[in-house]
Amino acid sequence: MPKIALLPGDGIGPEIMKEAVKVLEAVSERFQRTCTYEVLPIGGEAIDRYGDPLPEETLLGVKCVDAVLLGAVGGPKWDKEPAHRRPESGLLRLRKGLGVYANLRPIVACDSLLNVSTLKPEILRGVDILIVRELTGGIYFGAKERHAVEDGEQATDMLVYETKEIERVVRTAFHLASQRRGRLASVDKANVLESSRLWRETVNRIAPEYPDVKVEHVLVDNCAMQLIRNPRQFDVIVTENMFGDILSDEAAMLTGSIGMLPSASLGAEVDLYEPIHGSAPDIAGKGIANPVGIILSVAMMLRHSFGWEDEAQAIEHAVNHVFQEGYRTKDLASDSSYFLHTEEFGNKVVEEI
Amino acid sequence: MPKIALLPGDGIGPEIMKEAVKVLEAVSERFQRTCTYEVLPIGGEAIDRYGDPLPEETLLGVKCVDAVLLGAVGGPKWDKEPAHRRPESGLLRLRKGLGVYANLRPIVACDSLLNVSTLKPEILRGVDILIVRELTGGIYFGAKERHAVEDGEQATDMLVYETKEIERVVRTAFHLASQRRGRLASVDKANVLESSRLWRETVNRIAPEYPDVKVEHVLVDNCAMQLIRNPRQFDVIVTENMFGDILSDEAAMLTGSIGMLPSASLGAEVDLYEPIHGSAPDIAGKGIANPVGIILSVAMMLRHSFGWEDEAQAIEHAVNHVFQEGYRTKDLASDSSYFLHTEEFGNKVVEEI
Ligand SMILES: CC(C)[C@H](C(=O)O)[C@@H](O)C(=O)O
Ligand SMILES: CC(C)[C@H](C(=O)O)[C@@H](O)C(=O)O
Repeated sequence: MPKIALLPGDGIGPEIMKEAVKVLEAVSERFQRTCTYEVLPIGGEAIDRYGDPLPEETLLGVKCVDAVLLGAVGGPKWDKEPAHRRPESGLLRLRKGLGVYANLRPIVACDSLLNVSTLKPEILRGVDILIVRELTGGIYFGAKERHAVEDGEQATDMLVYETKEIERVVRTAFHLASQRRGRLASVDKANVLESSRLWRETVNRIAPEYPDVKVEHVLVDNCAMQLIRNPRQFDVIVTENMFGDILSDEAAMLTGSIGMLPSASLGAEVDLYEPIHGSAPDIAGKGIANPVGIILSVAMMLRHSFGWEDEAQAIEHAVNHVFQEGYRTKDLASDSSYFLHTEEFGNKVVEEI
Repeated sequence: MPKIALLPGDGIGPEIMKEAVKVLEAVSERFQRTCTYEVLPIGGEAIDRYGDPLPEETLLGVKCVDAVLLGAVGGPKWDKEPAHRRPESGLLRLRKGLGVYANLRPIVACDSLLNVSTLKPEILRGVDILIVRELTGGIYFGAKERHAVEDGEQATDMLVYETKEIERVVRTAFHLASQRRGRLASVDKANVLESSRLWRETVNRIAPEYPDVKVEHVLVDNCAMQLIRNPRQFDVIVTENMFGDILSDEAAMLTGSIGMLPSASLGAEVDLYEPIHGSAPDIAGKGIANPVGIILSVAMMLRHSFGWEDEAQAIEHAVNHVFQEGYRTKDLASDSSYFLHTEEFGNKVVEEI
């Protein structure tokens, strides 16, 4: 009986979490499974209640469960807080605390939604990319400083990588590529950054261990372009934390809406699942958020953390089916007056299950 | 009689430079101007001849001219060189040496080429974005280190910004925005980076000096998405060096090909003009490179450095006209057997002038 920590967070987080739990309940009922839940505070909500975006209770709590499901964190309300008391720092400490160094972000163009994207359908058909983003290192976690200099201040952020941090996430990516179409694009800026040169050397050193995977190195600026020019050229993409952040949000546009995309963060005992979109404070509370990102994150959780392949597929098929029937959330609707609210969409998925 | 330093560089650099000079000669003849040229070595070519990607001769030379026109640098041949002897380090030292801190990259969707892009024409029509990229600071120029640690190595790159470096490029961007549609998007990652927080504070402090400009802050991951989702929302974008590198290559896809895009790097006495594309070693020497990026860079040079507005427009109109007549370079051709070679395209532009 797996135990799941639920961290709704801020903005649209609580709304989409409700739908995720509904779907989880539905699939559990159909397959006669039982999950237990523990709701824990994170982000701005946790700042308001405990003065800390990742309270001790949450950090201890997530280590005693079988998987963690997160909504989203952040919002303008906390933008003025000092760095360590911002909602985002709670999320970063959670990722680091769990040791989930490999963030998997699948980007799959869904046939029934090809028209929603701003890209031409013929470019999108068949797109199936897996972005593996390093999640617990790089400039996100390097030393940050600010001090006075002549005429103002100086601010610094340190981008740091060690061989072993690169090795483990690159191995994950090679392994995944060997189970897919056998192609790996490693993205860096080796013509400028020392950390990227270490990254590239490490990839080249590991490559012979995976003779069935064809590896190529792509500069980050070129990758940002190629994702739009010809996305079908990519199978697995592996990259460092910040590049992964930027490229995966960009790639999200291949599916029509960032609201669609799930992610799994793996690496240690307890894995973390979260949609790749943010807390969207502008639409929070209106019931118009797209719950698909978190619902598909639940599917990833069942598959990766619990080994429940049938259950995962049941969720994925249900979501696809709702789209095939023509239902849309607001972000996907071509006619903005005809769409399902967050809760209605969740109900449709539950019906399909 | 302005003097121009020509730095052809590597790969397709020399081929496109030839067309640029042809166009420059044609426009000079028509408007009865005279320019003098000095050809100087840079990049891999300079490594081969002088063991240095930016020989003393070049660095001194560019300081004694009225403007610098660059082709492109880099290629696999020099990828194994140590960092300071790579072609790219010559380019970075050139930018820093000239003090050209503001890199202007206009992204304009050309009506006759709307179909070339992978984005839908209705999304592109009317796109007219000016990206202002900080060019002489940030992680490109911060300290880089590599040292041994347990189980391997550690590599670091320092992202550093000072208030005054941010101020000057942000002022340039505000000024340009006030001359255009009055909107400025400042792109950062203030929810994670200290340097971005300094960036954002600096933008907010300067904003009241330009009451006619409406400023918004956009996170870099969101910007990567918005450029594809709804590019017409942007007027001027200002951002730090690395983000500008990634976002401008991505935005290049809005025009159909990165081969189309010019840039101007301003800030001190002598300005630098270069296409935003790279040296494209894979197609070098085949005569199929698109010379439009460098030709439009020449137009920017005539306008910004010499104040020759009519001459600049003559070039821009000529290029547009060649496209309107249906001529395409290889990168833009829908039928890949029917296109103009680099030289033929240059000749057509010259005829129009
Ligand atoms: C909220 C923010 C810190 C986070 C990140 O940059 O990692 C988000 O953008 C993401 O991609 O998960
Ligand atoms: C060649 C490289 C160092 C350069 C950069 O990253 O600045 C290029 O990509 C550019 O955009 O001009």
